[in-house]
Amino acid sequence: MRYPTALVALIRELGRLPGIGPKSAQRLAFYLFDQPEHDVRRLADAIRDAKASLDRCPVCYNVMTRGEPSCAVCSDRQRDRSLLCVVEQPADVLAIERSGEYQGLYHVLHGALSPMNGIGPDQLTIPALMARLDSDTIHEVILATSTTVEGEATAMYLAKQVGEGRVEVSRIAYGLPMGGDLEYADEVTLGRAISHRRPL
Amino acid sequence: MRYPTALVALIRELGRLPGIGPKSAQRLAFYLFDQPEHDVRRLADAIRDAKASLDRCPVCYNVMTRGEPSCAVCSDRQRDRSLLCVVEQPADVLAIERSGEYQGLYHVLHGALSPMNGIGPDQLTIPALMARLDSDTIHEVILATSTTVEGEATAMYLAKQVGEGRVEVSRIAYGLPMGGDLEYADEVTLGRAISHRRPL
Repeated sequence: MRYPTALVALIRELGRLPGIGPKSAQRLAFYLFDQPEHDVRRLADAIRDAKASLDRCPVCYNVMTRGEPSCAVCSDRQRDRSLLCVVEQPADVLAIERSGEYQGLYHVLHGALSPMNGIGPDQLTIPALMARLDSDTIHEVILATSTTVEGEATAMYLAKQVGEGRVEVSRIAYGLPMGGDLEYADEVTLGRAISHRRPL
Repeated sequence: MRYPTALVALIRELGRLPGIGPKSAQRLAFYLFDQPEHDVRRLADAIRDAKASLDRCPVCYNVMTRGEPSCAVCSDRQRDRSLLCVVEQPADVLAIERSGEYQGLYHVLHGALSPMNGIGPDQLTIPALMARLDSDTIHEVILATSTTVEGEATAMYLAKQVGEGRVEVSRIAYGLPMGGDLEYADEVTLGRAISHRRPL
């Protein structure tokens, strides 16, 4: 039996999304087929509108509404303009904002260094970061790239580059996650938590 | 910080999909933001087109291209019109077709009986199934609803309803999945596999 072309196309497109395999794509396609036309159209419109109306902030490369001069953080006069937090992805900005612990600015790299995959400083927003440090009011750069091999390498690279200037460089703390049981922590995390212990 | 409206809307719509929680929705939204406009538009179009151009087959309620008289199975003159396989979902038709073991017709219930959730025979395509059995050339009905509590209850209900007529009723076999290790099979499956053993 041949499935209708439109269904095959939908399964194929859904299957391109990260974390969605062929089975999930098929399940989602049939789910959408069973939903009211109005709801399905709203999803399609949201996808199209998001792409059409979002852009990268020309200052920090975070996501922003297209046509605005800069993103919500960069254009907020209340933020501390002496602090700059460097992250890999726009989603990381959202995560840090949710913590409520940070009032400075951001810089989104849109990835991490990965020479194996041909991703060097020029494939990220590192040149723009360097230009920003030269001209801006920033006194401290907090390297908040992820604690993966590539995130660590990116932090080390940036520490070296930035450290040559007048700007202080720091790295987010390593240690046990809150609510975590010691016995379930991996040995690397636990080792860091001990060697980076703080006096009380 | 407030996220752009279009991004919030996209995360909300993606989060409505089954199996996609808030974190996955956010990850997918940022992924789409990073993709070329052309690819994102193709996904949006595939969703919209699938909904607009697909319909339920008026005979068996499987998915079909809108405007056609019936689905690819029902309109295939080569199929055995004495056999009718009853399944819960269009995806089940696809799964059985892939097995290559079946050449008869289908009837898609679009769910299973679930009195707790207010789903009785009239919320499914059971009345249409009964009408089909009265008027059609069918000699055997194969109940291929799932082996969940609700799928089983639906099969029992249908066996009783259909069994009153001239049509034979059968249930798909229970037993060990192929390639399955005995020690990993749950006790109910193993019990069924033994009590339904077949002479060689």
